[in-house]
Amino acid sequence: MRQGLGFEAPSVRNGEWEQMLRLFIQPDTEADRAKLVGYMEQILFGLQEFLHKHVGVTEEIGLKELALGYMDSSICFDPEKKLPEVISDIIDRIAPQAVNVSSPYFVGHMTSAIPFFMVLFKAIVAALNQNVVKLETSKVVSIVERQVVARLHRLVYGMDASFYEKHVQSTDATLGTFTEGGTAANLTALWVARNTLLAPKEGFEGVEAEGLASAYRAYDIDRCVILVSRRGHYSLRKAVGVLGLGNKSLVTIDVDGENRICLPALRRKIAEYSADPKIRILAVVGIAGATETGTVDPLRKMGEICREAGIHFHVDAAWGGPTLMSDRYRHLLDGIELADSVTIDGHKQFYMPMTCGMVYFRNPFHLDTISYHANYIIRRGSVDLGIKTLSGTREANSLVLDSALKVMGRKGYGMLIDHGIDLARKFAEEIRKRENFQLVTVPELNILTYRFCPTHLKEALLRSSGSERSELNEKINDINITIQRVQREAGRSFVSRTSIDKGVPGGGETVVLRAVLMNPLTTLGILNDILDEQEVIYRDNYREMDIRVQGL
Amino acid sequence: MRQGLGFEAPSVRNGEWEQMLRLFIQPDTEADRAKLVGYMEQILFGLQEFLHKHVGVTEEIGLKELALGYMDSSICFDPEKKLPEVISDIIDRIAPQAVNVSSPYFVGHMTSAIPFFMVLFKAIVAALNQNVVKLETSKVVSIVERQVVARLHRLVYGMDASFYEKHVQSTDATLGTFTEGGTAANLTALWVARNTLLAPKEGFEGVEAEGLASAYRAYDIDRCVILVSRRGHYSLRKAVGVLGLGNKSLVTIDVDGENRICLPALRRKIAEYSADPKIRILAVVGIAGATETGTVDPLRKMGEICREAGIHFHVDAAWGGPTLMSDRYRHLLDGIELADSVTIDGHKQFYMPMTCGMVYFRNPFHLDTISYHANYIIRRGSVDLGIKTLSGTREANSLVLDSALKVMGRKGYGMLIDHGIDLARKFAEEIRKRENFQLVTVPELNILTYRFCPTHLKEALLRSSGSERSELNEKINDINITIQRVQREAGRSFVSRTSIDKGVPGGGETVVLRAVLMNPLTTLGILNDILDEQEVIYRDNYREMDIRVQGL
Repeated sequence: MRQGLGFEAPSVRNGEWEQMLRLFIQPDTEADRAKLVGYMEQILFGLQEFLHKHVGVTEEIGLKELALGYMDSSICFDPEKKLPEVISDIIDRIAPQAVNVSSPYFVGHMTSAIPFFMVLFKAIVAALNQNVVKLETSKVVSIVERQVVARLHRLVYGMDASFYEKHVQSTDATLGTFTEGGTAANLTALWVARNTLLAPKEGFEGVEAEGLASAYRAYDIDRCVILVSRRGHYSLRKAVGVLGLGNKSLVTIDVDGENRICLPALRRKIAEYSADPKIRILAVVGIAGATETGTVDPLRKMGEICREAGIHFHVDAAWGGPTLMSDRYRHLLDGIELADSVTIDGHKQFYMPMTCGMVYFRNPFHLDTISYHANYIIRRGSVDLGIKTLSGTREANSLVLDSALKVMGRKGYGMLIDHGIDLARKFAEEIRKRENFQLVTVPELNILTYRFCPTHLKEALLRSSGSERSELNEKINDINITIQRVQREAGRSFVSRTSIDKGVPGGGETVVLRAVLMNPLTTLGILNDILDEQEVIYRDNYREMDIRVQGL
Repeated sequence: MRQGLGFEAPSVRNGEWEQMLRLFIQPDTEADRAKLVGYMEQILFGLQEFLHKHVGVTEEIGLKELALGYMDSSICFDPEKKLPEVISDIIDRIAPQAVNVSSPYFVGHMTSAIPFFMVLFKAIVAALNQNVVKLETSKVVSIVERQVVARLHRLVYGMDASFYEKHVQSTDATLGTFTEGGTAANLTALWVARNTLLAPKEGFEGVEAEGLASAYRAYDIDRCVILVSRRGHYSLRKAVGVLGLGNKSLVTIDVDGENRICLPALRRKIAEYSADPKIRILAVVGIAGATETGTVDPLRKMGEICREAGIHFHVDAAWGGPTLMSDRYRHLLDGIELADSVTIDGHKQFYMPMTCGMVYFRNPFHLDTISYHANYIIRRGSVDLGIKTLSGTREANSLVLDSALKVMGRKGYGMLIDHGIDLARKFAEEIRKRENFQLVTVPELNILTYRFCPTHLKEALLRSSGSERSELNEKINDINITIQRVQREAGRSFVSRTSIDKGVPGGGETVVLRAVLMNPLTTLGILNDILDEQEVIYRDNYREMDIRVQGL
């Protein structure tokens, strides 16, 4: 009864159920197969060609204007479009107005070009469509996941071979888990820390069962605190909010001149809280690659302090984790193996497609504190991976990472890490050389911040103090906000902006431009183009101001 | 300087950086392109052909034996394999030992075949690799997401056109959000409910800022409770645990003979808690498609009760939500529009690849209670979607759903829904007809439970009472556990099992076999094959017992 093309949307006329079924089965004629391959070519090449040709970032069009095309809020009864049209629309209409994050000129966020094979692996994962919450919907894929988790655990913790031999496929041990992203990974780590600290005891079933108010009563405390440097990612604030601890329980510690946590301040805070019987320190968080500055906290020292004080030490290495793949730079994360838990993102420096997070635990039984069971899956005594995860249903992202590790090796990833860090250092030199720029944070990994600061303002700053200096800094902040916005809107290249407290001496809140150098296609030449464009934007927008300021 | 094939892993010898770069750029020779297309054909057809040919579910192999092949825990320095090998390995070695969830004989979980175009859309999303946490990494894709969110909101709530015209692209309104899955969606809904109930007030900055212990003090309460029928999904228990409310705060209400929440019992509980000034009811949860039985709570009545009592009404429609696409069956969810929040999964009855959840809110400003900001993105006043989500970085799954809705229309999805429900009803009739089976829960949507219960045991049950009956039921439970396990291990077909309290009169905890009928390729003939196989398994395993029991 089949007729016509197998790839049409279900017709509203005759044979519609037949057509529907054909969406779910393998095309069996050469013509149908050729059609499907054609779509795939469109995706693989049409989209990629577009991205490649438009080295720029996005089309220049205002958001309000864009939004006008997407106002209709009804779902059509009949299929609105046929598949080829939908695909063409994405390639011809959506892509040009999306953001070309793969452009080597896009150096503003933790997103870059990814190896083309990642798209293939992601397609495989979608085609297999396993659900790793349980063995019944994943079987060997759960086992592969256990293996790749052990591989990453070993990269981080480097326990001896017998440890891994024992735990890699042991059904009661859990070395870590894949999560949706870094936020869920940090949340999982702090959730485990919370449940460990406020564990069941005589007359109390534990915080997970009885809740925080009861837990505080049972332990006779008023407050739990989590300590992190002021460079901590906002997901930590969110995590403690979600967990019912309250954002205020996240206590930020000052940083030193290199944006690393100030150890004396940390020690003081720990001593202060430890002296108060009504307060417990739930965790100390170290940062391995601060989102804004790329800096790494002194992990070994922090780990030692925590171990001595018996405090859960979590390391947020969402960004920096893969640095461990580089023989040249893995020492930058020295001491990470002292962490009780570690967050690493797959969609950042493992170059996986959005999204993939992971969290690892030194103790293979630490995740037991968040176990859940049900009757229909993840039963007691089962080996389902979903017993100890924040999420339920979960895609087999582990298969993407496992495959990528095989294709790239530590060497391949190491080369990418080395390129980023080396380029960041060269870029910093370049910024230092330019009169109208100021390097604000020196790159430790592959992130740096700087600002546009024309020479006459630099000089004026030197001569100024007090409110005059604040005023000048405000002006410089405005300039940098403008430059970043105009450059983004022009759509040829992109750096991000953020603001850093005490970014420059006496400067208060300092607006900075931020470059994240992970795209291997980004070169020093491209970075110079970006600086040149910023100079032009300044000249085009601030002639008058120049004149005014010079008259100061 | 290019040479050789562009798709090899980075060589460890000369030109390795050149080779690395080629992983990130467009193949530019015909030969390279053909190679890439070849891989894609392997994925699209090789994998699909395998899945299609092996109508069975998985290879028969024990887990321990399987695990032996995945013990190595080190990451090779050099690339371990080349890309073609890795792909072939997945197709030839992993896939046969994974679970063929697309088999029409796989009717045990909420996973089935998906339309082949879903793999294409997922590949597009991976290739574009947008991050919808912020406009700077997604632009028009964030706008498309707003539109599809409005479309689903309208499907659920059906507000008037002007409501949507106002809010669809309004940057301060948030009609809902995509999440990783149903667990994160339910968590988000209860998080919002928690923050709304324990909102800031004179002298108190709100639970998100100050934490639960302070909130309870500020509101002078001892406890918050969440009410749901005993058929509620385990993710709700997890969510209240994560949120610091404690699992015990989830109070389960009895169900009636049709597995729907018992309204008189709900009313009694609400009255009881409302009378206690130390307790607040944080939310009542209605179920639209119970995980185990597929039943739908009386949503309209529950909504009215909640509205009268001023309680947040959340509906977990992770499974049943898409029933709204069917003109024939959308009445089964009557009253869902009274919900303050609604969970719907994309990877369930929208047939998307793993994973995609969503949560919708009646009030476009309700999600404001979980707003987070940072300096480098999601700044105050920005229109970044990541301001009001549990996750940070998030893939553009919305583009998959948006595209699928266009290709399928309400009609297409409606046909799938109708097929599942119709088939479930026919299957129920078939089970009723067979002497050795017992229908335990009647299908309301497309899920039903039943058990194997040979005639002589049925008769013995009728004659028995008290401890004898319990003993008989224990035996029948054992039989069903065995049948499900043996059938799963044989790998030709798969139903799941769960246990239902009071599943059969006087039966206590009843082990049941559970069928989820969402795969359009599943026919009544296939379902009969599955029942036949179960009869054979019984005969092969229980001859002796038969004889023994008959002697009772």
